[in-house]
Amino acid sequence: MAILQYQGCYISHTASTVGKIEAEGPLGTCFDLIERDPYFGEESWEKAESEMVHRTLNVLLKKAGKTPDDIDLILGGDLLNQCTASTFAVSELKIPFLGLYGACSTAAESLLIGSRFCCSGQTKRAIAFAGSHFCSSERQFRFPLEYGNQKTPTAQCTVTGAGAFLIDTEEDRGVEVCEGLVGRIVDNGVKDANNMGAAMATAAVDTILRYFDESGHKAEDFDCIVTGDLGAEGEEIAEVLLKKCGFDPQGRMTDCGMLIFDREKQDVNAGGSGCGCSATVTASYFYPKLRSGEIRDMLLIGTGALLSPRTVLQKESIPSVAHLVHLRRTQK
Amino acid sequence: MAILQYQGCYISHTASTVGKIEAEGPLGTCFDLIERDPYFGEESWEKAESEMVHRTLNVLLKKAGKTPDDIDLILGGDLLNQCTASTFAVSELKIPFLGLYGACSTAAESLLIGSRFCCSGQTKRAIAFAGSHFCSSERQFRFPLEYGNQKTPTAQCTVTGAGAFLIDTEEDRGVEVCEGLVGRIVDNGVKDANNMGAAMATAAVDTILRYFDESGHKAEDFDCIVTGDLGAEGEEIAEVLLKKCGFDPQGRMTDCGMLIFDREKQDVNAGGSGCGCSATVTASYFYPKLRSGEIRDMLLIGTGALLSPRTVLQKESIPSVAHLVHLRRTQK
Repeated sequence: MAILQYQGCYISHTASTVGKIEAEGPLGTCFDLIERDPYFGEESWEKAESEMVHRTLNVLLKKAGKTPDDIDLILGGDLLNQCTASTFAVSELKIPFLGLYGACSTAAESLLIGSRFCCSGQTKRAIAFAGSHFCSSERQFRFPLEYGNQKTPTAQCTVTGAGAFLIDTEEDRGVEVCEGLVGRIVDNGVKDANNMGAAMATAAVDTILRYFDESGHKAEDFDCIVTGDLGAEGEEIAEVLLKKCGFDPQGRMTDCGMLIFDREKQDVNAGGSGCGCSATVTASYFYPKLRSGEIRDMLLIGTGALLSPRTVLQKESIPSVAHLVHLRRTQK
Repeated sequence: MAILQYQGCYISHTASTVGKIEAEGPLGTCFDLIERDPYFGEESWEKAESEMVHRTLNVLLKKAGKTPDDIDLILGGDLLNQCTASTFAVSELKIPFLGLYGACSTAAESLLIGSRFCCSGQTKRAIAFAGSHFCSSERQFRFPLEYGNQKTPTAQCTVTGAGAFLIDTEEDRGVEVCEGLVGRIVDNGVKDANNMGAAMATAAVDTILRYFDESGHKAEDFDCIVTGDLGAEGEEIAEVLLKKCGFDPQGRMTDCGMLIFDREKQDVNAGGSGCGCSATVTASYFYPKLRSGEIRDMLLIGTGALLSPRTVLQKESIPSVAHLVHLRRTQK
């Protein structure tokens, strides 16, 4: 069995922070914190990103009425080299910390691993989180912002946002992590760093097919099948490939990268991306729907393009991964 | 309880690969593979690092008589931006993969998380690994090798090496992972990237004190208490601090970074560092001693300095972490 079964791992609270253009998007009213200053009051984009994660974690603790002492484990990551946004953000909290790197799949990865620890009966509460910042990503992965370079239509826009989840084994507030599937790396040969959707699409397809093949479920068993951040290009490729492979998603597929922005009105090319994309959309758009019973079963398939600026310069292809998490309403 | 208890998680096999100067060091005869070409037959340092990890994983599978299909999960990481050495190394294997970032503590982190998955009864076999390469690290974190820059005496030498562990729930070959303790981030204000031992020492002390305080064990209960890669400077600081805090290690402390090189004869300044340091020394020096019964209980305290070149330039301090793993001989 490759599908992981979890028992008694509830998501009791979530929190999110986003930047200005995310707040102006269709989900703008969903998020907990909105910061219109891209520097978050700091001196650099990197410190801004760290501050954003820090604020998100503090809001989560506040919403849950917990102190850092109540939390046994915190785990997550970001896109910065050596994941420093996360490290500096959690440093003061003094909670045992596991650093993860799954590119834009990090939110799903942190839920998978955090729930595994909580299921053991030895970890009562864990915080899973992920974040990304448009400005720090642009200068690290692409060009200095000051260049004002033009983007290709397939390029995605890194979300400035952080999302955090409190996995709790004691407080069932209606939403649980019930299954997980760790992704395999899929490298379909795409080398265009401005088309990460195309690179990640096959990883998403691989994970979705593995899940439905092994679980025996059908698309109809889920209210929504949500990919992380394939964007317009990647989502289309994934849907075509799934149908070619005999899986009909029955119109239940959607993508966090497509939901967070309005591509007609906002200058975001193929949609949103970055660790913060699926983290904030899941934490603040889908989680409340699960809580209210509007949806009862969802699959989050966090997708990550595991490239670096150096591997792109060295003309390597873009290995990708997609981790699946099944979130379910506990009170049927 | 912060200490994690594991049951039935055996390390059935290990494998390691090192470069030329590691092979010329005091442990040179211990390692599985030695490659004198720093390029490992590839065109760049980064591809060399990936090839090194790839070879190590293949040797591990061969030693264990397993194919990738027999492995349910692989998890690990490296020091490269976006952990690409690991990603490219595991890409072909098609084993579900979790990417981790714990800097030089990654080997311990991968054992902690891998064993947690295996303990669940749902993951039969997992491979935990970590690797680093002197040349790719130098150019990423410090200076181009061609500069031939001089190092300070407190600087450490990144080990060119990769170590991998097969965690098996079915094959008890005499060594188990029985306990773990996830480290908290400790930031003591050290900003000197050429003295990471001093930055990491307090993280190691924090974890060691937490472990002994909670477990009730004494230093005498262990044949050795092995830190990851504090080096000469960090090891001395850690020992002094531990004694000041009332913990006497009874001469049982040692450090992988001090063992792998001969500081008298080799030009390595304060000793070895890098993800590959504790990974290779644990896999190929300590593991055989556990297997043979020469030692029966050891603590590995993997230490990681969670800086990036950018945080150093931004004059930030160096947050550090230390993850503890208790390895025990099962046949007393």
